[in-house]
Amino acid sequence: MPRSPSGAVEHAIVRKNLRVVLVSTRNPLNIGAAARAMRNFGFRHLRLVNPYKVAYQEARSAVHAAEILKEAEEFPTLAEAIADCNLVVGTTSLGHRELQHPLRSLEYGGRLISKQLASSKVALLFGSEKFGLSNDDLSYCHWLLRIGTEGSMNLGQAVAVCLYELTRQRGVAKPEPRKRAPAVDLERLTGLLTGVLKQSGYIHSAGADAKIRRLIRRLDLPAHDAEVWLGMLRQIKWKLTRE
Amino acid sequence: MPRSPSGAVEHAIVRKNLRVVLVSTRNPLNIGAAARAMRNFGFRHLRLVNPYKVAYQEARSAVHAAEILKEAEEFPTLAEAIADCNLVVGTTSLGHRELQHPLRSLEYGGRLISKQLASSKVALLFGSEKFGLSNDDLSYCHWLLRIGTEGSMNLGQAVAVCLYELTRQRGVAKPEPRKRAPAVDLERLTGLLTGVLKQSGYIHSAGADAKIRRLIRRLDLPAHDAEVWLGMLRQIKWKLTRE
Repeated sequence: MPRSPSGAVEHAIVRKNLRVVLVSTRNPLNIGAAARAMRNFGFRHLRLVNPYKVAYQEARSAVHAAEILKEAEEFPTLAEAIADCNLVVGTTSLGHRELQHPLRSLEYGGRLISKQLASSKVALLFGSEKFGLSNDDLSYCHWLLRIGTEGSMNLGQAVAVCLYELTRQRGVAKPEPRKRAPAVDLERLTGLLTGVLKQSGYIHSAGADAKIRRLIRRLDLPAHDAEVWLGMLRQIKWKLTRE
Repeated sequence: MPRSPSGAVEHAIVRKNLRVVLVSTRNPLNIGAAARAMRNFGFRHLRLVNPYKVAYQEARSAVHAAEILKEAEEFPTLAEAIADCNLVVGTTSLGHRELQHPLRSLEYGGRLISKQLASSKVALLFGSEKFGLSNDDLSYCHWLLRIGTEGSMNLGQAVAVCLYELTRQRGVAKPEPRKRAPAVDLERLTGLLTGVLKQSGYIHSAGADAKIRRLIRRLDLPAHDAEVWLGMLRQIKWKLTRE
């Protein structure tokens, strides 16, 4: 099947919209390997959350992906790293954890991601080599992408396999008609709802935040609806506070 | 599509029949990484042609693929390493070489390999980190598998992507079966939310019900989450009424 010029443009947009987010990566070789895989498959935007300083410094000298590493952005928290993304997907190669999230195969989930990429930014999260993504990290995710393997994967290899799958599916993907709410709005919603639930006595103990965060992510809100919900909750909060 | 028992058997045979052949590998980390990817995707038979002695010794201590490395076979020449294989396929991530061989995409070539694996042994060759497969190595190949990337790939990542493709084509991708909330709960939710919004002054006019109903339906709630939201809204309503 020949590639049409408009298809090539779409493809470029898809690649431009992905943010590969490495959370708490320890090994400089892995940061370098992730960047190299990105270059191989034509992705550019790397974000690092709280990387070991030494690891990041060393990785910058990796020969095969200098450009990507030079432009990589560093964030102190995951919330900041994904604030402008409309879909946040965590990766896992394990199935044993008791998961609060929908788990999608790389092939099926890859299709969903490709669709979203046609119109908005998607963050693809990779956890630390030793522990993967923490429960707190996971609470920021809409759903999880599972690479169906035996045992945990090497970080650089996991990045390569995911990006391969995203490029393999090119051409098949049609833009997702719904624009998802950006993470920053979802976080505002989480904060507002938590506040309202505390004021009304639904939440008594601390530590419910991650639960509420996951609940909000599972709603998978379109951008416009998120604004409506924000308005509703603000009004409820105002009413509860006034009385 | 459910996986039949015979499908599982076929799958096991396919995996048993592949020989991953690393030719003149220099870096012990790459031998370890290749073995780890093999373990991840369920392949067992690794063959090494003329590896640097030191590299091989060091790789043997890799933690994630001890079994595969222990059983790996070593050969002085490529000819001996592939002697018992019915199909020999070389890998390349570059396209610039003047090739004497048919060049197949990973996806199409992967299908051909999978078919062959159902009945006979296939050798998949990976060249050295620096030079790839030599012209002499290539002369043993029936055809070449091309991973369509920009720039050369890291060896371990190339192995991971190829093995992923071989298993992907046999894998079953299916969405997770989430149980959706019954309509009766969604209607209860609609009623509760409408009430709360009226009490808090968000809704003034009549006729907002249909809007709220659609808003709730768009959430596409799993059954359990609908119950959680019902509980939250009941509590908020109670609080608003009491005050």
